[in-house]
Amino acid sequence: MKAAVLHQYDEKLASDVFVTYEDVADPKIKNANDVIVRIGGAGVCRTDLHIIEGIWRSKVDLALPHIMGHENAGWIEEVGPGVDHLKVGDAVICHPLITSGHCLACRRGDDMHAEDSEFPGINVNGGYAEYLRTGARSIIKLPKSLAPKDVAPHTDAGLTAYRAVKKASRHLLPGEYAVVIGAGGLGHIGIQALRALCAAEIIIVDRGDMALKLAEECGADHAVKADGSEVEQVLRLTHGKGAEAVIDFVGEGSAIAHGLAMTRNGGTYYIVGYGGKIDIPSIDMITSEKTIVGNLVGTYAELIELMALADQGRVKLATREYKLADANQALHDLHHGKVRGRAVLIP
Amino acid sequence: MKAAVLHQYDEKLASDVFVTYEDVADPKIKNANDVIVRIGGAGVCRTDLHIIEGIWRSKVDLALPHIMGHENAGWIEEVGPGVDHLKVGDAVICHPLITSGHCLACRRGDDMHAEDSEFPGINVNGGYAEYLRTGARSIIKLPKSLAPKDVAPHTDAGLTAYRAVKKASRHLLPGEYAVVIGAGGLGHIGIQALRALCAAEIIIVDRGDMALKLAEECGADHAVKADGSEVEQVLRLTHGKGAEAVIDFVGEGSAIAHGLAMTRNGGTYYIVGYGGKIDIPSIDMITSEKTIVGNLVGTYAELIELMALADQGRVKLATREYKLADANQALHDLHHGKVRGRAVLIP
Amino acid sequence: MKAAVLHQYDEKLASDVFVTYEDVADPKIKNANDVIVRIGGAGVCRTDLHIIEGIWRSKVDLALPHIMGHENAGWIEEVGPGVDHLKVGDAVICHPLITSGHCLACRRGDDMHAEDSEFPGINVNGGYAEYLRTGARSIIKLPKSLAPKDVAPHTDAGLTAYRAVKKASRHLLPGEYAVVIGAGGLGHIGIQALRALCAAEIIIVDRGDMALKLAEECGADHAVKADGSEVEQVLRLTHGKGAEAVIDFVGEGSAIAHGLAMTRNGGTYYIVGYGGKIDIPSIDMITSEKTIVGNLVGTYAELIELMALADQGRVKLATREYKLADANQALHDLHHGKVRGRAVLIP
Amino acid sequence: MKAAVLHQYDEKLASDVFVTYEDVADPKIKNANDVIVRIGGAGVCRTDLHIIEGIWRSKVDLALPHIMGHENAGWIEEVGPGVDHLKVGDAVICHPLITSGHCLACRRGDDMHAEDSEFPGINVNGGYAEYLRTGARSIIKLPKSLAPKDVAPHTDAGLTAYRAVKKASRHLLPGEYAVVIGAGGLGHIGIQALRALCAAEIIIVDRGDMALKLAEECGADHAVKADGSEVEQVLRLTHGKGAEAVIDFVGEGSAIAHGLAMTRNGGTYYIVGYGGKIDIPSIDMITSEKTIVGNLVGTYAELIELMALADQGRVKLATREYKLADANQALHDLHHGKVRGRAVLIP
Repeated sequence: MKAAVLHQYDEKLASDVFVTYEDVADPKIKNANDVIVRIGGAGVCRTDLHIIEGIWRSKVDLALPHIMGHENAGWIEEVGPGVDHLKVGDAVICHPLITSGHCLACRRGDDMHAEDSEFPGINVNGGYAEYLRTGARSIIKLPKSLAPKDVAPHTDAGLTAYRAVKKASRHLLPGEYAVVIGAGGLGHIGIQALRALCAAEIIIVDRGDMALKLAEECGADHAVKADGSEVEQVLRLTHGKGAEAVIDFVGEGSAIAHGLAMTRNGGTYYIVGYGGKIDIPSIDMITSEKTIVGNLVGTYAELIELMALADQGRVKLATREYKLADANQALHDLHHGKVRGRAVLIP
Repeated sequence: MKAAVLHQYDEKLASDVFVTYEDVADPKIKNANDVIVRIGGAGVCRTDLHIIEGIWRSKVDLALPHIMGHENAGWIEEVGPGVDHLKVGDAVICHPLITSGHCLACRRGDDMHAEDSEFPGINVNGGYAEYLRTGARSIIKLPKSLAPKDVAPHTDAGLTAYRAVKKASRHLLPGEYAVVIGAGGLGHIGIQALRALCAAEIIIVDRGDMALKLAEECGADHAVKADGSEVEQVLRLTHGKGAEAVIDFVGEGSAIAHGLAMTRNGGTYYIVGYGGKIDIPSIDMITSEKTIVGNLVGTYAELIELMALADQGRVKLATREYKLADANQALHDLHHGKVRGRAVLIP
Repeated sequence: MKAAVLHQYDEKLASDVFVTYEDVADPKIKNANDVIVRIGGAGVCRTDLHIIEGIWRSKVDLALPHIMGHENAGWIEEVGPGVDHLKVGDAVICHPLITSGHCLACRRGDDMHAEDSEFPGINVNGGYAEYLRTGARSIIKLPKSLAPKDVAPHTDAGLTAYRAVKKASRHLLPGEYAVVIGAGGLGHIGIQALRALCAAEIIIVDRGDMALKLAEECGADHAVKADGSEVEQVLRLTHGKGAEAVIDFVGEGSAIAHGLAMTRNGGTYYIVGYGGKIDIPSIDMITSEKTIVGNLVGTYAELIELMALADQGRVKLATREYKLADANQALHDLHHGKVRGRAVLIP
Repeated sequence: MKAAVLHQYDEKLASDVFVTYEDVADPKIKNANDVIVRIGGAGVCRTDLHIIEGIWRSKVDLALPHIMGHENAGWIEEVGPGVDHLKVGDAVICHPLITSGHCLACRRGDDMHAEDSEFPGINVNGGYAEYLRTGARSIIKLPKSLAPKDVAPHTDAGLTAYRAVKKASRHLLPGEYAVVIGAGGLGHIGIQALRALCAAEIIIVDRGDMALKLAEECGADHAVKADGSEVEQVLRLTHGKGAEAVIDFVGEGSAIAHGLAMTRNGGTYYIVGYGGKIDIPSIDMITSEKTIVGNLVGTYAELIELMALADQGRVKLATREYKLADANQALHDLHHGKVRGRAVLIP
């Protein structure tokens, strides 16, 4: 099959050619519960740039040559002997993790905390290719309204945003405030999901005017420009008290300190973006009784919930399509901030 | 002051004159925390007809002559010596119960389970009058967007509907179903609140075409006519499984049995309307693992939440205004099904 | 292998011989994820008597001859080709349902609401035998402290009791009351689990003095004899208000009406036993804002939790051992109330 | 009346005399809902040493001369004109805050997040005296089993510990682990309350052998000496995964970093002690999906719950009594680590 293959790291992302479009062996069924998916679309994520930079080498067992691509959707091509509930040709989206389902975390539904798992595109080959091997437990059938290429980025970007705002929606009441920091790839999905899940007033904080405009189209009630006065602006909007929930899709630079400062006493700060540090005296956590919540990608069941929102039209994803052969173009466009919404590679 | 006074019961509601519009003594501050409210509007509720019929005589300590009216809003006219956070002229809405705030239920926020309370319009004089005595703890200041006469029915009809659907919204996930039985005075508020609080697909079940149409305007996704096939229709819409939540604003006739039959295994049936009986073998509760939830009027904090929804325009109330002097007309119109939305008496 | 086989129904339980101890074919691996368990002990449940009576014919697809036994524990004898996390000789306990794990209920951890499942002992052959076929997803490895024959009844009796009291423990606070109706096979486990999970004061209600004594040994704080004055006694103990949780392991006769009457306003009545009817006017549900919760057997994860309590010695099970060849004796003893705790058949 | 009065700060706590035992004017009823309490006992808290050091000058509006003492219990001496539910002579314990009860936080039961409040012993005169002025909303009547002097420290030390472990107990399941860091004044109450509220295995981490021994008497299942290897020891006890809940009563030095390292993926770290800093990269919060929870003193209702535990004997408090005239001795003993349990001043 054809694939876009990473052969060497490029710590400065300086090269024109990150991946090579070439022929590789087709993936094979290894375990009874494996499935092969014909890729309809594979999302291009900032994490892919970090993989090219070599950052993930130390964190996961990743060997070159490697096929990236952890946001995958397509059609069932082949199933292992243990799989009888899926059939060839089904349009599907893939939860990012391959799990056996045996550990207690999985048995409670918390797939992303599985004790052993594979992560296609990260530590085994992913979806920058015509075909992908994954596990039957990762597969969700798509409703007819949703084409694989249009939803592929929901498997990671969408699911992570959804899980974080879902947690917030469980305690946000009418008359309360939710601040969303960052209206980018994850944030613009987060705002739509939050609007669907609760009636809190949503305040978007972003540096960019275009992002603020997009956020308002997505359902934000108030737009605050991150020009240095954002904490002050949010406090003014919230009668001096701050917001009951702050969901930080940036997680670096001044975002964390500002996010914590925008959180009301007794409120919760959800961290999704990364790069920075949380740094707060314990006395401030105690006198304010704030909570800080880390957020990972969601469960299989939560991806089904997100697909329901997409099917109903309550969450829309902005995508830009590239041919798989043009993977380098997509990666460079992402690197240079030229992609609106999410790039998707189509074989 | 002028008031519409009930002097005698009328078990068959056969008389032309239920209440007499007459001069009575103004209410006085009795306790340090009392307030006098100048009535801007008082909702007319089916419970008022039941009071006239004498049904409530056995349930509460109610003596004639009596001034009905338990859905009240207006302006602060006078405050007791213990009240320093309210001032004359404030536009306000009144939580239906007068409570001392000392019992454990109140200290946990569950005002409606107060160990001792007065209920203006039910067991002490209510708001079919120019002035009302209530307690400072019942008072919520209104935002400028909301006039007392436009929101008065929220204190009971709205608050009860809101509390029931709020409970359901805490467990309803995207892709799940909520059935609302009855799109009348409470139901049409319930649908709007449910739409604001969660992303479940809402199925309205009602006998009347007008009610079904109103429900769809309020945000229902599917309309089911209650023509005897409603259980079958709901099961078809829910892939044969029933809904995760059924909220029954009718609570009599076949509604209860149908509502339970529409509830999915593991799901919850919320009963709000009354008149009928719940009658189910224990084995059916167990093998289905269903839950049945009774619903009372909401808390003070929940009325604030509902006012936030009203202020944002997410919940709208249909009212029809009558002069207080025309209280009999309003009561007869309600009795004969001629009121669309909620009748409100204006002094 | 040897098994105790049911060949014909006996509606009046009048025969001396319910089951025949005889040679039958060994069970075989059918699916990739099947396992064969060598039985260490199989609990004898009142439901088995109901199966003999023929009551379950109309509810499930049950064909004679049939091997009963739905409370099973033992050792892994053989595993299917899809099973790599279990090995022959492992001491195990079996969750009662065989599930594929594909449906959304299973993916959320709610095994007992699986869309398709087999139920050994009920609709396929069970554990009144030397060997049992079940699914790998049903298997929980036992800690060394627990022998299969000593814990087998936890799979149904224990797990059902645990799930019900666990739900109650989620809202029971210090200073609140929990009434347990019935201190029999399920109830005496329920009391121990409740004592371990919360600090509510536990009131046991039972007709029998021995049961009341056992309940106090299990951790009940107050014993109330069900002599007709039990509602009055519970109200007196609870300062006239009733209990925040009532857990009814009887579910027939006067237990249901009494249980609801013992439930405080705003409280919850959990029904576990069956045979009777819930019959309550909707107005009483509403003015009291009570909740009625049906309870099924628990999840796989909850059986692991219960094994942790057993391992710690916080929940102890009273059993009486019979040889498998003496299954008729065990069934007759159960029928005539001669078994203290739970009968267990040992091959 | 007699009182122990602070006349000047002592930044190094070097003086022999921190407070002066002298005659001062009796406190007077100021507001309709005030009460005067005759002190039965006032707890001596490390915060009092910090007040003497002058640390709190910058945080609250505190003027000298000042009467410290924020952990108070005694008997009602006098009530304001708005108070009719308390009577002179009632034995009572005082929630630490005086609140009006009007703000939304109070109406939801979250007293400690009141928008305006007084804090006797901190920003108004406290209980190092014969009499104390507080608000009627702070008063809880004591059961006969509890003498004021024996429970006074529960109002702050006990209530803070209780609230933190109660939060943890809401998610701790049998088979899960709770680490408690620090078995001192708060920690030993926390362990007892945790034991009463859930069945998790409790691991105590402390530097001192005596503290470890006390913790085991209080119900801890495992004792880990904080000798530098405590993270390793906890990981070994928890099968390499860490604990589902870590409750840190130390909150300074290495405790915070160690506490976070002992927290399992998906688990929660509760911070109660203070002095140190939380300092963690956002990526670590995300990949581990941990939660960090700040903890303030509890609600009025929670103090009632704690009194129920004390009344049942499930939570016992170690106290050492001093005469009010010997307040300096008590403060010095505390300063020099010579108080086992909690010092209580008795007028």
